[in-house]
Amino acid sequence: MTSTIRNKELLVRFIERVWNNEDLQAVDEYVAPLYTIHHDPGDPWDGQTLDTAGFKARLKRSRAPFPDQSFKIEYIIGEDDKLAAAWKWRGTHLGEIAGIPPSGRTITMSGLTVYYFERSRLCGHWQVADRLGVYRQLTGAG
Amino acid sequence: MTSTIRNKELLVRFIERVWNNEDLQAVDEYVAPLYTIHHDPGDPWDGQTLDTAGFKARLKRSRAPFPDQSFKIEYIIGEDDKLAAAWKWRGTHLGEIAGIPPSGRTITMSGLTVYYFERSRLCGHWQVADRLGVYRQLTGAG
Repeated sequence: MTSTIRNKELLVRFIERVWNNEDLQAVDEYVAPLYTIHHDPGDPWDGQTLDTAGFKARLKRSRAPFPDQSFKIEYIIGEDDKLAAAWKWRGTHLGEIAGIPPSGRTITMSGLTVYYFERSRLCGHWQVADRLGVYRQLTGAG
Repeated sequence: MTSTIRNKELLVRFIERVWNNEDLQAVDEYVAPLYTIHHDPGDPWDGQTLDTAGFKARLKRSRAPFPDQSFKIEYIIGEDDKLAAAWKWRGTHLGEIAGIPPSGRTITMSGLTVYYFERSRLCGHWQVADRLGVYRQLTGAG
């Protein structure tokens, strides 16, 4: 099995356990000791390098407004130590986000993320999500 | 030379000639007879399949508000007939867009695009750009 295929399987499990289910043990298994958010407009940690505790704090805070959130991967393409995932996301707006109180509405979003690997662990990403779509659903503006 | 490497070279020239310079002859060279916008939130042609004339019309209309626009590719990763490009973009706002009159301001944006190839021609894409960042620069809102 090539490392690209192994990394794809790892990424699918990472998304499911870490981002869809807030499984903190999976963070220890899949995430490198240092994880860099290379590019992620709107993410409060954009540009930062996080240790494992920092990654877990980001995970918890990111998921809090949408506790039932779920990423569905459309497809993954990969080369060496980078994989690009096209995804769609949905979540119920049950917590405050950017000053907007919980609405109970189902919010949808799409995005693309390039995940970076080192020694079969995730060590960073470069991501763009359709934030304007979310902004419009939350506020009716834009 | 593998098809992935050949497609990467083709993609670099396509972005430079077609999107940065509105070279219509390059459309004939690089774009397949049918081109599908598989996913591109905010693009008026999202979900449509265009013939060559339709592609050129989309190119002209998309570039009109920012006639000096320029995509800078950060990197490309690829697998078989799909390439993912991470990019940054800038352009001077010199034409009306979405009802907003020209401001003369320099606008920046980032995004990720997966380009689809068939027989060494571009036949579609799946893209997400940071539209909220552009909206904020154009309106000061959001």
